[in-house]
Amino acid sequence: MTPASRSSTLHGLGEFSLIRELHTHCHVLSSEVLQGIGDDAAILRTSPKKSLLASTDLAIEGIHFDLAFESFQDVGYRTAVANISDIAAMGGIPKFLLVAIAIPPSYSVNHMRALYQGFKKPCREYDISLVGGDTSSSKSGLFLCLTILGHVNPNRALTRHGAKIGDRVYVTGTLGDSKAGLQILQRQKKQKIPTVPQPYDTFLKKRHLRPTPRLAIGQHLSQGRLGHAAIDVSDGLSGDIHHLCQASHVGVELWASQLPISRQCQAYAAAHRVNPIDIALEGGEDYELLFTINPRNQGKVTDLGHTLKTTMTCIGKIQPKPFGLRLKLEDGNNRKIIRQSFDHFSTKT
Amino acid sequence: MTPASRSSTLHGLGEFSLIRELHTHCHVLSSEVLQGIGDDAAILRTSPKKSLLASTDLAIEGIHFDLAFESFQDVGYRTAVANISDIAAMGGIPKFLLVAIAIPPSYSVNHMRALYQGFKKPCREYDISLVGGDTSSSKSGLFLCLTILGHVNPNRALTRHGAKIGDRVYVTGTLGDSKAGLQILQRQKKQKIPTVPQPYDTFLKKRHLRPTPRLAIGQHLSQGRLGHAAIDVSDGLSGDIHHLCQASHVGVELWASQLPISRQCQAYAAAHRVNPIDIALEGGEDYELLFTINPRNQGKVTDLGHTLKTTMTCIGKIQPKPFGLRLKLEDGNNRKIIRQSFDHFSTKT
Repeated sequence: MTPASRSSTLHGLGEFSLIRELHTHCHVLSSEVLQGIGDDAAILRTSPKKSLLASTDLAIEGIHFDLAFESFQDVGYRTAVANISDIAAMGGIPKFLLVAIAIPPSYSVNHMRALYQGFKKPCREYDISLVGGDTSSSKSGLFLCLTILGHVNPNRALTRHGAKIGDRVYVTGTLGDSKAGLQILQRQKKQKIPTVPQPYDTFLKKRHLRPTPRLAIGQHLSQGRLGHAAIDVSDGLSGDIHHLCQASHVGVELWASQLPISRQCQAYAAAHRVNPIDIALEGGEDYELLFTINPRNQGKVTDLGHTLKTTMTCIGKIQPKPFGLRLKLEDGNNRKIIRQSFDHFSTKT
Repeated sequence: MTPASRSSTLHGLGEFSLIRELHTHCHVLSSEVLQGIGDDAAILRTSPKKSLLASTDLAIEGIHFDLAFESFQDVGYRTAVANISDIAAMGGIPKFLLVAIAIPPSYSVNHMRALYQGFKKPCREYDISLVGGDTSSSKSGLFLCLTILGHVNPNRALTRHGAKIGDRVYVTGTLGDSKAGLQILQRQKKQKIPTVPQPYDTFLKKRHLRPTPRLAIGQHLSQGRLGHAAIDVSDGLSGDIHHLCQASHVGVELWASQLPISRQCQAYAAAHRVNPIDIALEGGEDYELLFTINPRNQGKVTDLGHTLKTTMTCIGKIQPKPFGLRLKLEDGNNRKIIRQSFDHFSTKT
């Protein structure tokens, strides 16, 4: 295929280029739009005292989830958390959820009840009201589209574009657990004879199936004016640090030795002879927060971690744009950070 | 299949029962939710001076649209208008649109550009900003989920549940054109040899492919406190009058002789030997407004029609609930109005 014809197909263009392309079609006509497409959520001015956050997420059977190894309730839970996490990444408070579902006719009402039980659980936990939706039949698999609305203090929303040179880069919790959990689930699906369960299985599978949106941390970073830039780790660290640096027009040095990796993920990596650093870099759907702060606020972030009982790890430093995005290895060398995220239209995936 | 097992399948339960069932799962936790699931849009209190409207709509290839006889631009336009029409039915002002799309890999970037041109056109016309979205690949057909946000004056939103006994029932424009247009398009798709175009073809096809959201009328009905209840004719008059009466706990008498049917739709019906009344009752996607008013305001509605250059037709009268939903025929007899709307999970469709 010639480059010209490649660029006219979605395979050739790739997901992120497509988003940029469609981005140019987004005419923001209103001073009420403080942030349009290009962040975890749109920021819309609805009153002088608060702004509205809005984000929509697709979840498609066979692409985003696999009912062969997760229950309808798992799918509902995980999809809702993915959507709620977008509000966490903006430092907001989630308020309202709309759920559109297209359902294959072979699915039963009990399946749908279980799916909604999954939606309900995080909604109850975080005081979110399910206020609207749409239903349709589907000719091929379950199709979900969730839209979340939330509030945020005007001028305090965390965005991807606020990182400053010299900022320290932090991440909450641990990275890579969700990917390791997914791989365990996928392997178990393929195996006809069950394998001996490993001590790390339960923890890692739960980290994939029941992620935690980092709402309280996002809100503290926003209200305390601590966070300069933030994004949730949904595409994977390597992809999300690219999004953040691109939006902020900066480079970054991440430190391999500092990446927070759970002992369960380390054990999984050792058992499967893979580098845990790669799992941490490539693993999506952790829904941890990746954020940058002024170095003088590092003490405050440590205190916040203690208060909220969440690990906060400094994993690097924002650099000027020409520096690029580089990973400092434990041997002192460094290498370019390649975006490993899942691209829906890439020929590589 | 026994009734018990039927009720556990979506076929057995049907779409509207499913919506009611899922409705019971919707826990409205907040005094900020003025209207949850069960109307054209949710009404959310965001500030003392205005409320937010939110509605989400699915549009799926092979179910809601057919690219064999409509262009990508048509699909974009029509899907956006369907979503905007939900705001019209609440008497609101549409402000922000979020677009989630799942795209089969065989579709080109030019297809997507055309689709977005379709979204853009009504957005420009009605000052709506495209502020967010999501993209994914799709294994089977194009999948769209649009979410619209709008404003409405608190306590002035039009809802389905405000109809009062004695109210007159009105509808804007004409009914059935969209269905007739769709049937012409479907027939032309099947025919190998093109048929002689009929004088009504262009008008009816355009009414299907390029519907008009009745925003100004909805806003006047809301701001002038004229409308008691309203809904947009998306499912078809027979289905939408059921939704309105059910929400308002009332019955209705509609008058067959008064149903507004365009001369083009009349000619189409004559040519195909179908009763134009049936097309008007069953035809969905007209996106006209169906509303009820106090009879003393009939003059004001007539004046409004003149001002906005839109036909406003009184088609019936709200009755007590035990009266049921009945159509008075031209011969003086009357018959029950059967809901003919498309049910995504009905065994009949």
